[in-house]
Amino acid sequence: MPETLVFYTNPLSRSSIVHWMLEEVGADYRMEVLEFGDAMKSPAYLAINPMGKVPAIRHGDTVVTEAAAICAYLADAFPEAGLAPAPAERGEYYRWLFFAAGPLEAAVSLKGCGFQPTPEQERMLGFGRLEQVLETLEGAVDGKEYIAGNRFSAADVYVASHLSWGMQFGTIEKRPAFEAYCRGLETRTASRRVREHVEREMAAKGWSPD
Amino acid sequence: MPETLVFYTNPLSRSSIVHWMLEEVGADYRMEVLEFGDAMKSPAYLAINPMGKVPAIRHGDTVVTEAAAICAYLADAFPEAGLAPAPAERGEYYRWLFFAAGPLEAAVSLKGCGFQPTPEQERMLGFGRLEQVLETLEGAVDGKEYIAGNRFSAADVYVASHLSWGMQFGTIEKRPAFEAYCRGLETRTASRRVREHVEREMAAKGWSPD
Ligand SMILES: N[C@@H](CCC(=O)N[C@@H](CS)C(=O)NCC(=O)O)C(=O)O
Ligand SMILES: N[C@@H](CCC(=O)N[C@@H](CS)C(=O)NCC(=O)O)C(=O)O
Repeated sequence: MPETLVFYTNPLSRSSIVHWMLEEVGADYRMEVLEFGDAMKSPAYLAINPMGKVPAIRHGDTVVTEAAAICAYLADAFPEAGLAPAPAERGEYYRWLFFAAGPLEAAVSLKGCGFQPTPEQERMLGFGRLEQVLETLEGAVDGKEYIAGNRFSAADVYVASHLSWGMQFGTIEKRPAFEAYCRGLETRTASRRVREHVEREMAAKGWSPD
Repeated sequence: MPETLVFYTNPLSRSSIVHWMLEEVGADYRMEVLEFGDAMKSPAYLAINPMGKVPAIRHGDTVVTEAAAICAYLADAFPEAGLAPAPAERGEYYRWLFFAAGPLEAAVSLKGCGFQPTPEQERMLGFGRLEQVLETLEGAVDGKEYIAGNRFSAADVYVASHLSWGMQFGTIEKRPAFEAYCRGLETRTASRRVREHVEREMAAKGWSPD
């Protein structure tokens, strides 16, 4: 009997990254939608994620939090989907997963908070400056269909989610290399399905990206 | 013939995390020490890491940057060291690797920059608040020898490095659970060897942690 997979989510959050990944691996999962606020801070949910944040998953007895960790976990737990390179060939795969989860995520959200590091702080901060982070990532996807090796992987799900979300909401500048890379991935059935889901939920709440 | 492994490092930096990991896997590597400043911004080094930062490694043709990514990569590339769980059992392993590379790293370094998020920003920022990050991590290591499963892994190298470095330099508060966890790991030969190396380098530069 396959183990139960529960997906703790809010459709208007980073959870959509994991949603895309779940659709890619073809896992059978149950969604548990949590509203922002009290629902995420209930003792029952804090036992899953003491940060009181989504996304999280529970797969049998295994709890995983952090969108990037969940992507990497699912790729390994569902090997038949082929979303992780062979273990000895994971250099680029880990590099860009961690680059997006660390420097990119931090630089983008801090810019959103109006935080501007001094040159001295840039040397100490893992992300330096947003421009340098975007420049680095541009080099990694420029002219490429996939970010790691020549195959679609969990790293694409995670990186492209950040890029398209960021470009849609104006937190990441639209660069042709980013747009081309995302456009190629957005045609995937799993990605489209999740985007439609998010759009329906946004419409239901009367939100708009523009 | 095994592939050449080059370690781009500065001993007084996050590179010591990777140094510990290299000693754990027993890899044969060559150190290339880069001073802060121009050496890290040379075209030759920017071709390795466009962020102009250490650590980085080159293993044959594979370049990996981001300390956490390098730890995960080395664990998989040197399977005989047994530093990564079996692929289907990597939930906790990825969870805490990404938690430390994302929320912990960001919260600690931003606190160091004097950045204080508003409650509204906390909901949007992946790390929320430093206290909550430390609380979450404390729950993960409390009373445990290892953070993922019951075995030493690359996740311990990465997490314990952050914790002991942070407690030493006063950026992470000393909590008994953190101290006990780190104390257990600091007895490892590889860890001791790197600590001695760093201490020698600090003494040579006339630096002191106190
Ligand atoms: N580092 C986490 C970030 C998760 C996160 O910050 N989630 C936000 C939504 S995008 C959240 O749940 N905020 C609710 C809150 O903090 O109360 C990840 O990558 O999964
Ligand atoms: N996200 C990177 C951070 C690397 C980083 O910020 N390294 C610092 C030293 S700890 C550096 O090389 N700074 C030099 C500079 O930016 O000029 C990682 O985790 O490896």
